[in-house]
Amino acid sequence: MTDERVEFRVSPDRYKHWRVSYDGPVATLVMDVDEHGGLVPGYELKLNSYDLGVDIELYDAVQRLRFEHPEVRAVVITSGKPKIFCAGANIRMLAGSAHGWKVNFCKFTNETRNGIEDATASSGQTYLAAVNGTASGGGYELALACEHIMLVDDRSSAVSLPELPLLGVLPGTGGLTRVSDKRHVRRDLADYFSTKAEGIGGKKAVQWRLVDEAVPRPRWDETVAERAAELAGRSGRPASAEGVMLTELGKTRDGDIIRYAHVEARLDRDAGSVDISVKGPQNDPPASIDEARNSGFWPLAVTRELDDLILDLRTNEPELGTWVFRTAGDPALVLAHDEFLLASAADWFANEVLHYLKRTLRRLDVTSRSLIAVIEPGSCFAGSLLELALAADRSFQLAGVFEAVDPSTGDPDAGPATITLGDINLGPLTMSNGLTRLQTRFWGDEAGYEAAAKRRGTPLEAEDAAELGLITFAPDDIDWDEEIRIATEERASFSPDALTGLEANYRFAGPETMETKIFGRLSAWQNWIFNRPNAAGPDGALRRFGTGQRAVFDRKRV
Amino acid sequence: MTDERVEFRVSPDRYKHWRVSYDGPVATLVMDVDEHGGLVPGYELKLNSYDLGVDIELYDAVQRLRFEHPEVRAVVITSGKPKIFCAGANIRMLAGSAHGWKVNFCKFTNETRNGIEDATASSGQTYLAAVNGTASGGGYELALACEHIMLVDDRSSAVSLPELPLLGVLPGTGGLTRVSDKRHVRRDLADYFSTKAEGIGGKKAVQWRLVDEAVPRPRWDETVAERAAELAGRSGRPASAEGVMLTELGKTRDGDIIRYAHVEARLDRDAGSVDISVKGPQNDPPASIDEARNSGFWPLAVTRELDDLILDLRTNEPELGTWVFRTAGDPALVLAHDEFLLASAADWFANEVLHYLKRTLRRLDVTSRSLIAVIEPGSCFAGSLLELALAADRSFQLAGVFEAVDPSTGDPDAGPATITLGDINLGPLTMSNGLTRLQTRFWGDEAGYEAAAKRRGTPLEAEDAAELGLITFAPDDIDWDEEIRIATEERASFSPDALTGLEANYRFAGPETMETKIFGRLSAWQNWIFNRPNAAGPDGALRRFGTGQRAVFDRKRV
Repeated sequence: MTDERVEFRVSPDRYKHWRVSYDGPVATLVMDVDEHGGLVPGYELKLNSYDLGVDIELYDAVQRLRFEHPEVRAVVITSGKPKIFCAGANIRMLAGSAHGWKVNFCKFTNETRNGIEDATASSGQTYLAAVNGTASGGGYELALACEHIMLVDDRSSAVSLPELPLLGVLPGTGGLTRVSDKRHVRRDLADYFSTKAEGIGGKKAVQWRLVDEAVPRPRWDETVAERAAELAGRSGRPASAEGVMLTELGKTRDGDIIRYAHVEARLDRDAGSVDISVKGPQNDPPASIDEARNSGFWPLAVTRELDDLILDLRTNEPELGTWVFRTAGDPALVLAHDEFLLASAADWFANEVLHYLKRTLRRLDVTSRSLIAVIEPGSCFAGSLLELALAADRSFQLAGVFEAVDPSTGDPDAGPATITLGDINLGPLTMSNGLTRLQTRFWGDEAGYEAAAKRRGTPLEAEDAAELGLITFAPDDIDWDEEIRIATEERASFSPDALTGLEANYRFAGPETMETKIFGRLSAWQNWIFNRPNAAGPDGALRRFGTGQRAVFDRKRV
Repeated sequence: MTDERVEFRVSPDRYKHWRVSYDGPVATLVMDVDEHGGLVPGYELKLNSYDLGVDIELYDAVQRLRFEHPEVRAVVITSGKPKIFCAGANIRMLAGSAHGWKVNFCKFTNETRNGIEDATASSGQTYLAAVNGTASGGGYELALACEHIMLVDDRSSAVSLPELPLLGVLPGTGGLTRVSDKRHVRRDLADYFSTKAEGIGGKKAVQWRLVDEAVPRPRWDETVAERAAELAGRSGRPASAEGVMLTELGKTRDGDIIRYAHVEARLDRDAGSVDISVKGPQNDPPASIDEARNSGFWPLAVTRELDDLILDLRTNEPELGTWVFRTAGDPALVLAHDEFLLASAADWFANEVLHYLKRTLRRLDVTSRSLIAVIEPGSCFAGSLLELALAADRSFQLAGVFEAVDPSTGDPDAGPATITLGDINLGPLTMSNGLTRLQTRFWGDEAGYEAAAKRRGTPLEAEDAAELGLITFAPDDIDWDEEIRIATEERASFSPDALTGLEANYRFAGPETMETKIFGRLSAWQNWIFNRPNAAGPDGALRRFGTGQRAVFDRKRV
């Protein structure tokens, strides 16, 4: 879609599409999309429709509210346009986009909406959708991510999911799943609603549970303020704490190397892979949580860098299908930082860092790239960083040490590689399925889980780690390079689509949640439909929308 | 794929590909596929590979074992070929098939494998896979549907899922889901296994949980017999009962009308819909379950007819996208038959009928057609037949009576249409998600569920039924024809693909099970991949398989 690289780093002074205002415990996010501010040329963002650029700003705003505004306990999302709340994703943008762009765009918007729900559930920042005009498609889906939906009752405003009747596709941002599994709209009413392009407003929208209340315009402002105050009242966030500014993330690009302070990515275009290395902390954790409150705090800094890198590579480097993770540093210092965080978990800031790490690791889980962890002497796959290996599709841990080490690149005296489970692996960093990566790994194997969990705190060399089922393979020095080379090369030879499907299935054993349903079921169907001539073909509904011509469908049901 | 209609009615004397033998409580199903016995021309069924025709026979065999052989407590599935158990679905058949055919084929094979698991779980007929040679792809997936998998340990036999490395697609019959969620193979080992075309055999296959035991050839026969006897020993099926023969199902075709004894389907090609009417029982239930033991017993007969009709229309009429269900008869007689069945549920035959009805309704749930129930005076949407309305995407119940009735087609004295919940709606007829249709309908609305359930046994007219949330719309005589016409016509105007995705999402609110994961997640990904040029394009892996040429992939990850 574009030759330029998409950047996810942004800050409020550069927003084109959103305004944020603060009134004590209530913040208001006003969507006021600049028609001419599209990320790439070729479409106008009319009627508060959005593209990736609009959503990058929303993601930034949601993040900053959590870190920079401990005093904010309720967030109102509303529109700055008259009569329209939000028209959803821009159709011309979608119709003109390559399949991969559409899918990646939907994934990111999904993650941001999940993040809104996570702020409500985990952070005492409850979102309120003040739908002051029609909310259609992605616009209604944005409202669905909020805890409470208010719709103006003016005989013209409505909520709708017109994707099926108008575009021949499905709502792409969790709409169907949230309608049925979050708002508990009865399935036959949901079906009817999703085929009615003009949507439903007023009392019927309330009766059908599509919104929580319909409020006449004369009472609108006061009722929104009242509701926001009520929601803010439920929160346990501190009233007088000072926020932690998310300062501009340092990032440089040098040819095919992307560097941050703690994370570095080397792109290998021949191999179709990226080598990602993550540095552990260099120092002990701060003496107190108060001293930790800055964006240089290692767990926060490294999470921000990983987050940005994942988004960058996903969007800008679709041909690099395998990501190889390495770490370097002292495992004890990683564990010390984890313990520091867990011990401070009642503190709002420590809580934010933990949940941000959780969300970033979840982003990795739904990334359509093969993930390989390579565990070598000098690495620090312990606690929070061990999650990278547990998130990987395969992991390799060197048995013993390298026989010959080049002193310019490695430590000849380094002992054998180890991994170490910490308490952080046993609880807070849940996947989208509600389980930890360790629980998912041992799903249906209670004894295996117990045996592994019992060893937490103990550095495990390769044989032990393999025996316990914590790593996949434990080659020794003789086979090491060859095994990793073969795994990477083989991966690059397979169908990228089949790998995406394989990984999306195997990464989520066990129970399902709304989040896994959105990524696993709804997205898979949507991707299928996006790819069908009935939607994306020259006579398909998505391409014909707005042309005055009706779509031509192959009527065969599949 | 073929101009001829596919028939699902078959019987053992006509099997081309399977042999069934009986030895007291143990039956053996020998797969011995006739290479030249393909359902349509264009491929040879080498190496015990299968097409729809092979699976139609398997389905028939599994059904007959349950009804005709109460004495059978364990079923051994094995191969009649040397060195090969089963090579899975025939690749040339798949490569030469239209997308819709592939998807429908996979759905049916999935249902048959789910049926094998249902026999094990619900019927005391436990399946044992005696894998006496290599089982690859769908061959291993067939074994995965069995409770116990034995693999011959001969240094050459292996189990494998070579779909990804060889064909660029996913296993299409639940393989990934059963590997992770049923056999609890660790996700990284599962990933490795699914990329290794030659598969894994011997002790490693046992260690990785891919099979339950590896048995050397010299001890093979005796060990299989031993294991089968053990599994048979767990069963509660009666030893001396007489089976109920599934006599040839009466079915006639007269132009666009398909008629059975109790079910009739009128195909409307202009409207793109099928009118399906189901007759309730004409008489009281038999005096005792012993008198019910014949294939004319109404609940069994009507279920067989519905089952055959669903399979027939799915396969042969893909352009008829909406099925409209009506019933005719006395609701009290339907409820009397339901109660008779429930009262006899401890009897093996009553148990079989109930589970068969459950499986047939599940088939309806995963059918990619819009389902509409039309509830008129003279209808009998009560108990088991009410499930048709609860399975529908929308239902219409006439409020009041028709003002003018043509005495040649209707009863002018008929009272208003009613629906009646029975005990059968509150328990045994679970959907794939493990909930009843009533529970799914009221998922997240406990009060709504209780209010409806409390009225069981009471005939509910349209206003009451609508108020309780049991039907969608209750138009009166003035609007009736128009509303139903609009609903059907509108449905026919939408994208068939988007409807399929919408229905697949809304029909399954709430929890997920292995079955819903297979139909909702794995199948959706598989359908997407089937549709991508990397698999099905002229240079794709599926088309290039066996040509000696490597597939050419677009390397972009989506």
